[in-house]
Amino acid sequence: MASSHTTRVTVRYAETDQMGVVYHAHYLVWMEVARTELCRAAGFAYSEMEADGVYLAVAEASCRYLSAAKYGQDIDVEASIADSNRRFIEFHYKMTHEGRKVATGKTRHIYLNREFRPTRLPDRYAGMLGSDYETA
Amino acid sequence: MASSHTTRVTVRYAETDQMGVVYHAHYLVWMEVARTELCRAAGFAYSEMEADGVYLAVAEASCRYLSAAKYGQDIDVEASIADSNRRFIEFHYKMTHEGRKVATGKTRHIYLNREFRPTRLPDRYAGMLGSDYETA
Amino acid sequence: MASSHTTRVTVRYAETDQMGVVYHAHYLVWMEVARTELCRAAGFAYSEMEADGVYLAVAEASCRYLSAAKYGQDIDVEASIADSNRRFIEFHYKMTHEGRKVATGKTRHIYLNREFRPTRLPDRYAGMLGSDYETA
Amino acid sequence: MASSHTTRVTVRYAETDQMGVVYHAHYLVWMEVARTELCRAAGFAYSEMEADGVYLAVAEASCRYLSAAKYGQDIDVEASIADSNRRFIEFHYKMTHEGRKVATGKTRHIYLNREFRPTRLPDRYAGMLGSDYETA
Repeated sequence: MASSHTTRVTVRYAETDQMGVVYHAHYLVWMEVARTELCRAAGFAYSEMEADGVYLAVAEASCRYLSAAKYGQDIDVEASIADSNRRFIEFHYKMTHEGRKVATGKTRHIYLNREFRPTRLPDRYAGMLGSDYETA
Repeated sequence: MASSHTTRVTVRYAETDQMGVVYHAHYLVWMEVARTELCRAAGFAYSEMEADGVYLAVAEASCRYLSAAKYGQDIDVEASIADSNRRFIEFHYKMTHEGRKVATGKTRHIYLNREFRPTRLPDRYAGMLGSDYETA
Repeated sequence: MASSHTTRVTVRYAETDQMGVVYHAHYLVWMEVARTELCRAAGFAYSEMEADGVYLAVAEASCRYLSAAKYGQDIDVEASIADSNRRFIEFHYKMTHEGRKVATGKTRHIYLNREFRPTRLPDRYAGMLGSDYETA
Repeated sequence: MASSHTTRVTVRYAETDQMGVVYHAHYLVWMEVARTELCRAAGFAYSEMEADGVYLAVAEASCRYLSAAKYGQDIDVEASIADSNRRFIEFHYKMTHEGRKVATGKTRHIYLNREFRPTRLPDRYAGMLGSDYETA
């Protein structure tokens, strides 16, 4: 199980706004990219999980902006699993540029089935996402 | 049948880039908004068409940028049906701000079924999209 | 002073993702749209504030997703000023579709000058943003 | 001078729409990413050019969509300089996934100064962008 993984994104021009820095909503996209790569490092592609009929729906997301990210900069996004069971999972993120802290964030997800109802994470993925224990 | 319709969008901060103007890709989104409203004016919601298993897939899109659009400005997007039959449809767009021409654009679409194969526009929509004649 | 204001956005196709619902980062954009309209209702355009050299930088943003928003739906975004002084301002948001709660959110902002250093909100705007009292 | 360069992007979940494929406007963003990397391969960062007061404004953009791009897929975006002088530059793009053609595109740009008026590309960049000959 990979409980933490760092992914690098390079700031796109499309991600800047007229303040000359990255528009704040795009950090949530970077978190998604890092989460996807964390799954891959854990041993599966998230697209397979969807093909298995399990959706990782975002229930909460938050971000604290600490210093500006600018066009062309490489941002390292470290994603880690902060809490996980068969019903939900919480990721924490730390974003840095050459060691300078850019932002921190959290996302909390629940597992949904194809009918968009809460479901339990299948055994196949439980070990890989650090949630192999039972939960009420 | 409504062969032309004008929709107003207000430039969002999210749509600007560090040049201080709207990032060019967002104009394609405005065209989509205007196309959606043209369908509504023609008598149906595009979401119904998808529910009927017919997808309006974009085959080509283009845009000419004539003058800058800026945060907070109201942009009038006129969409019109330039060509249409049971296999494809082409829309043209004219975007203005208080009469000043901002951009023009075109999108060409083909109809796809749920398996993503070319299909024919059902009778139900043909009249509304100006394509009630037969085509080879 | 308008301490609360509701703005309607219609879900764009561009805002959906392959789950068939609105991608979670776009809710932050809707909050921005509602904040902009709240400023307008309070008596000024945010673009004027930037022209005056005062930037409303996002320091924190969060969102709780309660039910799915879908393509074509009208979403009412109520923005209100929850806390405000000459140094920062906090907005709360409630998003609904035909009365059904879709999401709630918060953003916290600090005022920055052209050099991106913290600054105080000028008198001109203080009354309009409910921050006409002094602060340390 | 690098007259052609290939950059790889991995499809983000944020880039998909409810049709289950990449929303068409995002291809223009990928072209921007490839253009940025082509500049870097040619010997400069585009951000330096802006710092020098020269902006590469998009005058025209177009894209032909040939086959769907999906979440998680690696897309190779080849950007090449098709035409270039001191007044404008045109890039062509070819996007592929594991050899399968996904899309082709073109963007045409003019050089603008800080006042957003047409300007000539400075000597410093001319050689690197294949435009070291004079033009009317």
